[in-house]
Amino acid sequence: MVILGIDPGSITTGYAFLQVSGNEFSVLQYGVLHAGANDALENRLLKIVTGLEELLDKFHPQALAMEGVFFAKNAKSALVLGHIRGAILVACRRRGMTFDEYPPRLVKQAVTGDGAASKEQVANMVFARLGIEPGDLPLDASDALAIALTHATPAPLAVALGGKRPSAVRKKKKASVQQWKALIEKMGGTV
Amino acid sequence: MVILGIDPGSITTGYAFLQVSGNEFSVLQYGVLHAGANDALENRLLKIVTGLEELLDKFHPQALAMEGVFFAKNAKSALVLGHIRGAILVACRRRGMTFDEYPPRLVKQAVTGDGAASKEQVANMVFARLGIEPGDLPLDASDALAIALTHATPAPLAVALGGKRPSAVRKKKKASVQQWKALIEKMGGTV
Repeated sequence: MVILGIDPGSITTGYAFLQVSGNEFSVLQYGVLHAGANDALENRLLKIVTGLEELLDKFHPQALAMEGVFFAKNAKSALVLGHIRGAILVACRRRGMTFDEYPPRLVKQAVTGDGAASKEQVANMVFARLGIEPGDLPLDASDALAIALTHATPAPLAVALGGKRPSAVRKKKKASVQQWKALIEKMGGTV
Repeated sequence: MVILGIDPGSITTGYAFLQVSGNEFSVLQYGVLHAGANDALENRLLKIVTGLEELLDKFHPQALAMEGVFFAKNAKSALVLGHIRGAILVACRRRGMTFDEYPPRLVKQAVTGDGAASKEQVANMVFARLGIEPGDLPLDASDALAIALTHATPAPLAVALGGKRPSAVRKKKKASVQQWKALIEKMGGTV
């Protein structure tokens, strides 16, 4: 199956198409979709989504894994972030893709074993794990790879939840942890 | 020209297609697009946008006027509202439509002369103004009509800004009031 990892942003959206066959991973393509920072929001959205749709129709992923927003900093930034997330969700659901989201700390925990890892640490681990050379790409792109890898590997996710849970999960109510466990089981992992 | 007024929501989105020829208005269609309240957000977005796109391809509006979010209540509701707004914006920009947004108080002020009017007062004024019988539709639909009507009538908007300004505008910085004035002038009105 092909997993699309997305680190959404209305100016720069990181993406990664990861092919998974059993325990073998193959990075089909990863990078960033850019829009002009001074363009109107509606034009940025259209540009990023149109670019993404071209990639969707090239790689035909079955699953969307997106960086989740669990603790929005403020209403204004949440509103803007919601715009690009909504536009991406429609493009993906229209193509029948499933959708799951992971909080940043859970991704860091699953990929590096440390929920407080830096973006650079996450990137280094992802490149080592996938056996690819770090390119000259922004960290949004390696973040997207990390999100796809998290979705593809339920075992580290289960460890992340069962052992030293990242605060993003720890702070949530019990019902939400149950939802995470159900997600991991759905993905073939055990908690 | 045909103006699309939108009162966005991820469960119920009100819409109104208003044809404007000089000072004559003709309501082509108005109503609400519904999604199941218990459906996942991504499915609600797809359902509402797909319904909207059918209407866009039927009525070919040139302008989108949407209820703006200027004072989001909290980050979580702003995030969800952002999703449906972003999805709608992509559908409309893809079809070359312009985009303007109006805060709720400005719409009320422009339509009824009172920025604190109730939704029922707005609905009654809109129906009277457009010469249509109030139907059995939710208030989201008449709100959408009011937004389209606001966009179509720069003069009341100018009065709203020049006289007793609605607090939504008054609270904003001077630069933003200038933006509103520029918008009204662009629409052929005077401030």
